[in-house]
Amino acid sequence: MDKNIQTFLACEAAFDDAKTVLFGAPFDGTTSFRPGTRFGPSAIRSESFGIETYSPYCDRDLTDCAIYDGGDLELPFGNTERVLSMIEDYTEQVLSANKRFVMLGGEHLVTLGALRAVCRRYPDLHIIHLDAHTDLRTDYLGEELSHSTVLYHAWKLVGDGRVFQFGIRSGEKYEFEFAKQHTTLRKFDLQGFEETVKALEGKPVYFTLDLDVLDPSIFCGTGTPEAGGVTFKELMDALLQLNRLNIVGCDINELSPHYDHSGTSTAVACKVTREILLQLTSDFS
Amino acid sequence: MDKNIQTFLACEAAFDDAKTVLFGAPFDGTTSFRPGTRFGPSAIRSESFGIETYSPYCDRDLTDCAIYDGGDLELPFGNTERVLSMIEDYTEQVLSANKRFVMLGGEHLVTLGALRAVCRRYPDLHIIHLDAHTDLRTDYLGEELSHSTVLYHAWKLVGDGRVFQFGIRSGEKYEFEFAKQHTTLRKFDLQGFEETVKALEGKPVYFTLDLDVLDPSIFCGTGTPEAGGVTFKELMDALLQLNRLNIVGCDINELSPHYDHSGTSTAVACKVTREILLQLTSDFS
Amino acid sequence: MDKNIQTFLACEAAFDDAKTVLFGAPFDGTTSFRPGTRFGPSAIRSESFGIETYSPYCDRDLTDCAIYDGGDLELPFGNTERVLSMIEDYTEQVLSANKRFVMLGGEHLVTLGALRAVCRRYPDLHIIHLDAHTDLRTDYLGEELSHSTVLYHAWKLVGDGRVFQFGIRSGEKYEFEFAKQHTTLRKFDLQGFEETVKALEGKPVYFTLDLDVLDPSIFCGTGTPEAGGVTFKELMDALLQLNRLNIVGCDINELSPHYDHSGTSTAVACKVTREILLQLTSDFS
Amino acid sequence: MDKNIQTFLACEAAFDDAKTVLFGAPFDGTTSFRPGTRFGPSAIRSESFGIETYSPYCDRDLTDCAIYDGGDLELPFGNTERVLSMIEDYTEQVLSANKRFVMLGGEHLVTLGALRAVCRRYPDLHIIHLDAHTDLRTDYLGEELSHSTVLYHAWKLVGDGRVFQFGIRSGEKYEFEFAKQHTTLRKFDLQGFEETVKALEGKPVYFTLDLDVLDPSIFCGTGTPEAGGVTFKELMDALLQLNRLNIVGCDINELSPHYDHSGTSTAVACKVTREILLQLTSDFS
Amino acid sequence: MDKNIQTFLACEAAFDDAKTVLFGAPFDGTTSFRPGTRFGPSAIRSESFGIETYSPYCDRDLTDCAIYDGGDLELPFGNTERVLSMIEDYTEQVLSANKRFVMLGGEHLVTLGALRAVCRRYPDLHIIHLDAHTDLRTDYLGEELSHSTVLYHAWKLVGDGRVFQFGIRSGEKYEFEFAKQHTTLRKFDLQGFEETVKALEGKPVYFTLDLDVLDPSIFCGTGTPEAGGVTFKELMDALLQLNRLNIVGCDINELSPHYDHSGTSTAVACKVTREILLQLTSDFS
Amino acid sequence: MDKNIQTFLACEAAFDDAKTVLFGAPFDGTTSFRPGTRFGPSAIRSESFGIETYSPYCDRDLTDCAIYDGGDLELPFGNTERVLSMIEDYTEQVLSANKRFVMLGGEHLVTLGALRAVCRRYPDLHIIHLDAHTDLRTDYLGEELSHSTVLYHAWKLVGDGRVFQFGIRSGEKYEFEFAKQHTTLRKFDLQGFEETVKALEGKPVYFTLDLDVLDPSIFCGTGTPEAGGVTFKELMDALLQLNRLNIVGCDINELSPHYDHSGTSTAVACKVTREILLQLTSDFS
Repeated sequence: MDKNIQTFLACEAAFDDAKTVLFGAPFDGTTSFRPGTRFGPSAIRSESFGIETYSPYCDRDLTDCAIYDGGDLELPFGNTERVLSMIEDYTEQVLSANKRFVMLGGEHLVTLGALRAVCRRYPDLHIIHLDAHTDLRTDYLGEELSHSTVLYHAWKLVGDGRVFQFGIRSGEKYEFEFAKQHTTLRKFDLQGFEETVKALEGKPVYFTLDLDVLDPSIFCGTGTPEAGGVTFKELMDALLQLNRLNIVGCDINELSPHYDHSGTSTAVACKVTREILLQLTSDFS
Repeated sequence: MDKNIQTFLACEAAFDDAKTVLFGAPFDGTTSFRPGTRFGPSAIRSESFGIETYSPYCDRDLTDCAIYDGGDLELPFGNTERVLSMIEDYTEQVLSANKRFVMLGGEHLVTLGALRAVCRRYPDLHIIHLDAHTDLRTDYLGEELSHSTVLYHAWKLVGDGRVFQFGIRSGEKYEFEFAKQHTTLRKFDLQGFEETVKALEGKPVYFTLDLDVLDPSIFCGTGTPEAGGVTFKELMDALLQLNRLNIVGCDINELSPHYDHSGTSTAVACKVTREILLQLTSDFS
Repeated sequence: MDKNIQTFLACEAAFDDAKTVLFGAPFDGTTSFRPGTRFGPSAIRSESFGIETYSPYCDRDLTDCAIYDGGDLELPFGNTERVLSMIEDYTEQVLSANKRFVMLGGEHLVTLGALRAVCRRYPDLHIIHLDAHTDLRTDYLGEELSHSTVLYHAWKLVGDGRVFQFGIRSGEKYEFEFAKQHTTLRKFDLQGFEETVKALEGKPVYFTLDLDVLDPSIFCGTGTPEAGGVTFKELMDALLQLNRLNIVGCDINELSPHYDHSGTSTAVACKVTREILLQLTSDFS
Repeated sequence: MDKNIQTFLACEAAFDDAKTVLFGAPFDGTTSFRPGTRFGPSAIRSESFGIETYSPYCDRDLTDCAIYDGGDLELPFGNTERVLSMIEDYTEQVLSANKRFVMLGGEHLVTLGALRAVCRRYPDLHIIHLDAHTDLRTDYLGEELSHSTVLYHAWKLVGDGRVFQFGIRSGEKYEFEFAKQHTTLRKFDLQGFEETVKALEGKPVYFTLDLDVLDPSIFCGTGTPEAGGVTFKELMDALLQLNRLNIVGCDINELSPHYDHSGTSTAVACKVTREILLQLTSDFS
Repeated sequence: MDKNIQTFLACEAAFDDAKTVLFGAPFDGTTSFRPGTRFGPSAIRSESFGIETYSPYCDRDLTDCAIYDGGDLELPFGNTERVLSMIEDYTEQVLSANKRFVMLGGEHLVTLGALRAVCRRYPDLHIIHLDAHTDLRTDYLGEELSHSTVLYHAWKLVGDGRVFQFGIRSGEKYEFEFAKQHTTLRKFDLQGFEETVKALEGKPVYFTLDLDVLDPSIFCGTGTPEAGGVTFKELMDALLQLNRLNIVGCDINELSPHYDHSGTSTAVACKVTREILLQLTSDFS
Repeated sequence: MDKNIQTFLACEAAFDDAKTVLFGAPFDGTTSFRPGTRFGPSAIRSESFGIETYSPYCDRDLTDCAIYDGGDLELPFGNTERVLSMIEDYTEQVLSANKRFVMLGGEHLVTLGALRAVCRRYPDLHIIHLDAHTDLRTDYLGEELSHSTVLYHAWKLVGDGRVFQFGIRSGEKYEFEFAKQHTTLRKFDLQGFEETVKALEGKPVYFTLDLDVLDPSIFCGTGTPEAGGVTFKELMDALLQLNRLNIVGCDINELSPHYDHSGTSTAVACKVTREILLQLTSDFS
């Protein structure tokens, strides 16, 4: 009799057989409003069995892909820098094995841990960022490491003209002004996403998806729901283009499942994860 | 002093005076993910008093219609076949009295009980099916009688070219392939609904509405919320055409009210029920 | 050490320094379906710190405005007329000081208290009304003072042709017929809002926003959720035109926060309040 | 086919055949903290089918009793005095028919409406009152008719030495001092209940049960949960003595079902109602 | 890198190394009131990491025990008899390997599947049953296989004098009368439990714990909360005596986690499971 | 017109006039299971108006006491050490002004910040600790600063024989063994509390109350609910003796209000806070 193995839906390949690694980074230590994204990755994993393996959007099936689910990192509480190091180490390990990864947050700061490893390996990295928030603060109540500063840190790693932001509808005034000079920022919606994808074809891309880019009508299970977001269909239209990119790393973050008792937000995150996995493995890798 | 009679809003006609019969089939015995649709019909009935009898959509009023509310069937637990028989018997009784019915589910399998009776009486029956799911499986974990196989059973009753499916966005690959050969299936939205209505004018039609065809943003109180659904307005546009059809039987299913603490899903189901009742009785029958 | 002052986000001006006064009227005494709007103003105040002071919609910042937050009126329970008088007195006081106000309800009847004072001072008043409901009943179960009669009372104060209603999708048949003769009523959406604003430029306007004009997908935290409402973006498009009007009084009502456990409805109310305050103070008053 | 009659569990007798009348008074218009008791009687009625008709506590079965369930009064909103009159009229009607009643609140003020009728008929009335709160205020924010003044009004009707209060653990200082002079008040628990029952044998008694006398661990679905209450077993021990009394009227109030998502509070209220009904009809009347 | 294995807290032994097998039977197909116990075993497993491995009650640690967690059976929906067969087969397999088991329900009917296998192997079996309900019906709405008939079936398997019931406080009158003749039934509490344990020492015992024996104040996450139950401490006092028995099979059932948003019920079930596992392995087997 | 000042019920004294200072430390950065205690102090403050100022337990009234409410500290996120310093600074300031304080957590680690200041001023400090958990770990996942290590740090500050623990029912084995040598630990209940109070009369005492010492039946709104706790009455009996002690600092922590939708846990925390404040000011200071 075998032990009880729990993976995201159909992600049952062995590490060595998989080109794509899924793992969770259940950290919410700098969340400033409502915490709880630590429960995100396990909720996505356990509820994933409520959706189908087949996607009628791209006519592909997860059961045809070889994806390894590494479970969740066991992260400490109260030590932000150490958490980032552990994420960095894990992603380093994945990249060293010549694989790409999809990281399930946790709050958005987990992206920084992963980016540190990715940037070392891909100096020419570009970042596509979908979010309700600019995340370009230089600090939050005096702390430089914060979910609200993560794209500022990302920008410091890759430099001007490499960060492409979509769906942004909340931030301080100075963040929007910073963006005008250093990033490409699209307010409110995803217009221009397709052009960005075209422009980045062939280049190494990190894709970071803060699920709160979605309107809270369809995704209220998050720390800071911001009305006026994109619809699920708009997001899907963007995601369906990801197969044209060379995505070397990716994260899906900010699901805080306890705030949505209906389970819709978790179900949305599951479906988004399925579609992203299908896009990344569209060459049957 | 009279006893406490509880009906759906304004459906207070006596059985003999009504051409249309409303009743509930509170069954969720084959639900595979989250049960609870057994609470659907009673929730619809008791919350219906939160909406108005008048519809500004079609400019008609429920108080002008003669509808009988038969309450809920008292269905057993754990015996699927017996439940279907009881539903079949009840609908048979209604049809024998030369009336049409609107059945409130319960899960989608209840449709099969009703269809068995309807098909006997109307061999030329056509089925219009709105749903997030194909429901065309041949079995679920070995069981042939399942909410996820109900349209497959429906197809077996009416045959090729008689089943029209709209809004479908979830299923196994083989179900979509089956549909290509045996049913008319529209993915994701309701496009073509008007043409279908036109094509079926004059023919006996069974209308089965799985409320999860709606996007979970407006209808999360259901067993398996599937993002990417139709809006309430899109559904209303479709429903407002039903008066052109000869609907001999109808069901509204898959409300699971406990999963939506805000009560929105139940309120939506109430309004949908009101509009369908107004459409069916648009000839003041 | 200073005491703990709690205001709506950044509304920290002293009364004398402010042209605009924010205050709460936590009354829900005539609510006929689900009560709880009494919790609205305090929820809006305490959750306002989850949003930013800067609006990317109008590129302005609340920290640049001088707004006084007077807290909530301490209203009695069970005496509707006395509650209206207390609201009338407070607004009278604000108007006497040559200020405008934004009142946070509470249920929609609170508008009547404010209107009594406003109409005395501005006999030429016009009213713009966004709502899911007509609110034109003459009574509710025999009571003339009711959330569902409030626009009828408003009409009695200002007369024919002065009330402009948008987004209405629920009411009794006679209310819609009344509207045809006495008010300007737009069903379902906000079409014509811009034209109305143009037509009312320069005139004193009272703006009353029943938040249930929004679709329950984005605003389910209300007594009577009515599907088929306007989107947040449609509402924002309308609100962004308010700076062209001479708004002498305004209210935002019908948030019932306990019915939305996700907190989205309250967050929406906070953002709407921020945008309205920014519009009213767009002349930096 | 018969219409859908909904009564409390097994209370299916006709009015004329019943000595005991059950009815609901869904009023919460003076509730000062959290409203919602208006949903109490309908919740008790619909959830009563989750319990058994047989009581192992008193070894009797509801199916052996003849009880008439008159449904809920249709009370207006926002007019406290009119509500009390309607309750008074209904109870007057019941008493005139030589029956006793069990009224399901609603907030505690409903007791006053009933008492007005009962006191007229039974000048020698005594009142037994179980509650967390004294309810002896003379006014609340200036209003004399309030859930928090109801026992003060009751005392005014019956006079000194006729009111027996148990379980009281919250109130203003002056209320406790008032009680010392005018009522018999037991703090915190039900000690002395049996003695009181003995002392009142043979006299006409009104029994008013504010369910918040129960500890919120077992009854949190109420407006003002007060820790330190009596256990369910302690309450049951008291209730099982009621058959020794000549109870001419009775009420069970302050269930606010929406605040207890687990349904426990409603289930408790159902069981309490069953036991009280069994006690009142223990002479098989 | 290893795959993500999920077990109950510290139950990480291999099948061959364990004398005790834990597994889940997520079935709720005959639940008559509120379904959802299908989510019980997975909730217990995932939330078990919120408690400690060490018990200060018995001063023992789960990490010192060799327990195998076999995960959940994949049971079909809508076919009660087939579900029972699958449970019977699994337990047969465990018993054949000379091990004992702890089954996590699911609803109480799962006990019958296990008992069929256990009774074959241990003809001299005795049953200890803790529950709020008699579960001695002969049928429920015509169905013989029901959670409410399970002890009746158990009695048919073992015969008179072999079933010991505690904590019972709900049932039909005829069930209590049946118990008087055929089982040993203690109403309301666990008095006599210690004597029963003493009397059964050395004999093979099946222990079936319906968690609703607990008062809903501490365990409301269940289908039918019944006030008046035993306290957690009373239950613990009983459980701490189990090490004196030869328990050959055991089940813990009726957790319906979605009905308790606070998570307390699941935490209680976790702790009860830990204590039972520690009792069963007290000989370090 | 005055601004909107929000304090805990009746704690309206100016800083200079008060001997007792109430303040909040909304920190939950090391919480290992379910976060959310950051919402504790503001919930306690805003819901305190649902209880009375008068206590029938000690026959005293908060309106007779001079207490200053300093509001909540504005603590950063993700930097544990800096948070502790800010708490230390604030308490230092209070002690320097010759006042005592009651700190509302937040998680239990906030105690350490306060203790650092208190221990400097009172080298002879003794600590009374009520909790479900030992909190004597030396680290948690490698972090020394953790809610689960806070009493270990406290012990390091005051030394052997100075820490008195009650109600403890969860911890690792080594923590209980540590306690045997270094602290006085009472498992499960509060027995011996009175003796401890007597023994510590006249000495400076810090009283730290982790509200999860209460049974989750009455207090489920906390990160880690542990069944088997003390009742509200048992806790009250202990609290009513605090007036005999020289309490120089005190905290009440671990309310996580979002996990208890009924509001009971917050109401309990309010009442506990009222009683503690009344005990500390029983000399009318």
